[in-house]
Amino acid sequence: MEKKKCRVVVVGAGISGLSGARLLDGADVDVTVLEARSRVGGRTYTKRDQSYKYCDVGGSYVGPTQNKILRLSRELGVETYRINNTGDYVHFSRGKTLRFQSTWPAFKNPFAWLDINNTFRLMDKLLEQIPPESPWLCQYADEWDNKTMKEWFNSVCWTRTAKEFCQSFVLTNVSMEPGEVSMLWFLWYVRSCQGTKRIWEVENGGQERKFIGGSMQISEKMAEQLDERVILEEAVVLIEQSDDGAVVHTNTHKKLECDYVIVALSPSLYQRIQFSPPLPALRSQLIQRVPMGSTIKNSVFYKRAFWRDAGMNGFGTVIDEGEPVINVVDDCKPDGSFPALTGFILGDQARRLTVMTREERRRLTCECYAKVFKTDEALEALAYEENDWNAEEWSGGCYTSTYPTGVMTRFGKEIRKPLGRVYFAGTETAVKWSGYMDGAVEAGERAAREILCRIGDISESEIWQDDAPPEDVPELAFEETFWERNAPSVDGVIKMTSQTIIIVTAAVTIYKYSKFHSAWYNRLGEYVMGKMTG
Amino acid sequence: MEKKKCRVVVVGAGISGLSGARLLDGADVDVTVLEARSRVGGRTYTKRDQSYKYCDVGGSYVGPTQNKILRLSRELGVETYRINNTGDYVHFSRGKTLRFQSTWPAFKNPFAWLDINNTFRLMDKLLEQIPPESPWLCQYADEWDNKTMKEWFNSVCWTRTAKEFCQSFVLTNVSMEPGEVSMLWFLWYVRSCQGTKRIWEVENGGQERKFIGGSMQISEKMAEQLDERVILEEAVVLIEQSDDGAVVHTNTHKKLECDYVIVALSPSLYQRIQFSPPLPALRSQLIQRVPMGSTIKNSVFYKRAFWRDAGMNGFGTVIDEGEPVINVVDDCKPDGSFPALTGFILGDQARRLTVMTREERRRLTCECYAKVFKTDEALEALAYEENDWNAEEWSGGCYTSTYPTGVMTRFGKEIRKPLGRVYFAGTETAVKWSGYMDGAVEAGERAAREILCRIGDISESEIWQDDAPPEDVPELAFEETFWERNAPSVDGVIKMTSQTIIIVTAAVTIYKYSKFHSAWYNRLGEYVMGKMTG
Repeated sequence: MEKKKCRVVVVGAGISGLSGARLLDGADVDVTVLEARSRVGGRTYTKRDQSYKYCDVGGSYVGPTQNKILRLSRELGVETYRINNTGDYVHFSRGKTLRFQSTWPAFKNPFAWLDINNTFRLMDKLLEQIPPESPWLCQYADEWDNKTMKEWFNSVCWTRTAKEFCQSFVLTNVSMEPGEVSMLWFLWYVRSCQGTKRIWEVENGGQERKFIGGSMQISEKMAEQLDERVILEEAVVLIEQSDDGAVVHTNTHKKLECDYVIVALSPSLYQRIQFSPPLPALRSQLIQRVPMGSTIKNSVFYKRAFWRDAGMNGFGTVIDEGEPVINVVDDCKPDGSFPALTGFILGDQARRLTVMTREERRRLTCECYAKVFKTDEALEALAYEENDWNAEEWSGGCYTSTYPTGVMTRFGKEIRKPLGRVYFAGTETAVKWSGYMDGAVEAGERAAREILCRIGDISESEIWQDDAPPEDVPELAFEETFWERNAPSVDGVIKMTSQTIIIVTAAVTIYKYSKFHSAWYNRLGEYVMGKMTG
Repeated sequence: MEKKKCRVVVVGAGISGLSGARLLDGADVDVTVLEARSRVGGRTYTKRDQSYKYCDVGGSYVGPTQNKILRLSRELGVETYRINNTGDYVHFSRGKTLRFQSTWPAFKNPFAWLDINNTFRLMDKLLEQIPPESPWLCQYADEWDNKTMKEWFNSVCWTRTAKEFCQSFVLTNVSMEPGEVSMLWFLWYVRSCQGTKRIWEVENGGQERKFIGGSMQISEKMAEQLDERVILEEAVVLIEQSDDGAVVHTNTHKKLECDYVIVALSPSLYQRIQFSPPLPALRSQLIQRVPMGSTIKNSVFYKRAFWRDAGMNGFGTVIDEGEPVINVVDDCKPDGSFPALTGFILGDQARRLTVMTREERRRLTCECYAKVFKTDEALEALAYEENDWNAEEWSGGCYTSTYPTGVMTRFGKEIRKPLGRVYFAGTETAVKWSGYMDGAVEAGERAAREILCRIGDISESEIWQDDAPPEDVPELAFEETFWERNAPSVDGVIKMTSQTIIIVTAAVTIYKYSKFHSAWYNRLGEYVMGKMTG
């Protein structure tokens, strides 16, 4: 047997760990992947059952600009399909269902529309200031890191409707309440996902597609290729390193000697591992400060896609503290079979529902859909599937690590620093689509190339690599309407209106006053009129 | 050998774990304590060296109302001594050393004094609203948990001096910046320590005393009594439990079968352990959200106590971002030998200094003391000792777990819920002097009694027990001066002043106006004057 270049142990068989291992394997490195769970895939999880064939209860969506996961999935023979978006989007709030032609609700109240338009235009402007690879260097880092998104929305939005929509924007994107996350971190996150439109949209955005057969196949196919080099049900409990090499210990008392290690876990899960020598102080304190979001994801299967038949596409934003679901998405199979709706239970709702039974969550979700889609047919579920990620010991929550105020500026720069022979992957360490499957691939491959660079196989400039967009999922720019670009903020409207009122009042007052009390004003007026008329 | 009542494994040989184990041992329970470190004591750590005899680089201070640790230490034969407070307290800010007769600086600027007096009087009033055992039930819980202490200070304080002093109050007490902690949690913490005066004072407060010979002796003496039932260098990696019992697994592959387990660690360290079945979702998410504070504690030893000779007692508050130390305390031995100053490097300063070398920290600390005590003698250290708690893998920081905004109301109630056969101790689970040695004893003994109650040895009403104050450390009330109770806030002064100005101006205007233009006012005046003069 030929001698391999070096030996690497990868901790975690999610997309990040496996994509790093696959790259190393292809570069003739002896690699072993250790996974604590009895399955690969990490935060992607495709459940299978004859009643619904397959169902992604974890990370699932892909879209334009996510070129790494699109390239990897194509190489593995996993195809994407477009989520149904034919029909109206719905927006449920205060007991009423509103129907729109876009994911951005076009509220009839012009102030609400102006408010939302202005807030997101401003958000996109601000996030442009944040360097994706080092948000702590942003000029406004201190100011923005000391503020929650809730505080920022309160300072920018004028209408309750806009505030509610902004809350659902944060919840949907990071499964935390706006008051729980740092403005700097959240803006960085949206920046890493290419802006507010790209992260939010279905068409041309992050929710455009899913994988036929489920997203976990990507990990499964990589694991197939790596074969016996992926070992399940081995939780790493200790990583020892010295000048000579590293030893990775598992909870079944296995010891794997190697040259390098890639830790491909969420940062807060590093605490499950003893490091020898221990993690440096700042890294140790960072990983205590970046909690996982709170997510329960479910799917309800029906006899027919009643929402489609009623002219809706199944996408809905639900803004109501009493309802379990924040977002609902059509989850029919590509051919329309197995009609289903996927629901996202996020933030405070996830904390409320995590202590309920599966049956209660199923009932509450169906009752919610009956209100949102205005039909009792929603109560007649054929099947139900779910995953409570908050209770998953090897995730600790979903989708991703989140940063409360003050953490990014104080500890953020530690996030992907290698420590001796140990390198760090996981979607949290990505700079593009962090928190997504695409970021997982970026991070895994980058960590793998850091090791290849260390052993002299590639140069430092080759560590970070971009991928071109695939032909079938091009990176189309978003077209902005004149009004989106130029409509004033509510603030602006109020200022304009009040200024107009002041000027008109002043002019009228002066005119009246001059008429009755002073000939001088009349003469001035005549002079001005004279000048103006020529 | 007689049959014991049951078998308990205690995880962690800090004061909390050991005091729980000692209580169980005394109640004829078969107990084993597992400790990851090569020493007992946890966050109390007494270093010993011939150049300074002994030196507490961890938890050290005790005072009135800390009746549990005082009772325990007396039982173990560890005596306390009073910290030197003869001489002036110093307050160093903007390059100047101010000397005061009290730990509460009596600033010459009356606005600063009014401001501080009002802020702390208000703080004491607010924290009275918080139930120590369930702060999440406080009437204002949501409002206060959504605010940092920094935001609250900014809304209450008018002067820069007061804001700076308030910052040092938070830093000193919880080793976090005011912007990093929830107002609800911090007020609860101060409440658990019996109010702002008790937590801050030397005389009659939390810093009144230390233990002769060092605080780690308390754990060492308990460990001596428990003898071979305390096992060092065994990190627990897995706690399995079933209907029949529990099995505790260590990193050296030991398996201890038992009936019950007490986990006596900081909550964020629970993540070092795999629980089977896993921790419930809310507990798992809580422990990701309560980071340890940032602390480096050091002692500098000198030839003579130059501060004492200059009429100062050695206590100092240093308010200057450029200086390493936030607090300095006299650390001479009880008989005055081994003159020394203890320094606390906290919050952002700890994060800045953790990446420096020990030598750099020593130099910066001595240079700081030279400025604060205005003598170059401070540069002539005979010896230096320190501990960087942020780098301690089995603590993760010091002094205690801290709560960012939003965590207490969402997850707080999970803090000490038993999980099947597993009970939780550690000072963070205490309701009185949480974060202190006293809270550690409360929590350890409470968890032990929860188990005794479970096996039917004691009743539920006996689980929580109060201790009477020892005779030599009585609980004296703080005497408030008339001015402390009644002085207005700066706000009040401004309002009073502006109201006075408005009333006087109005009166004068009316008088002038009436004098020249209206006889009616004169008549009114004469009438009023007539009534007043009789």
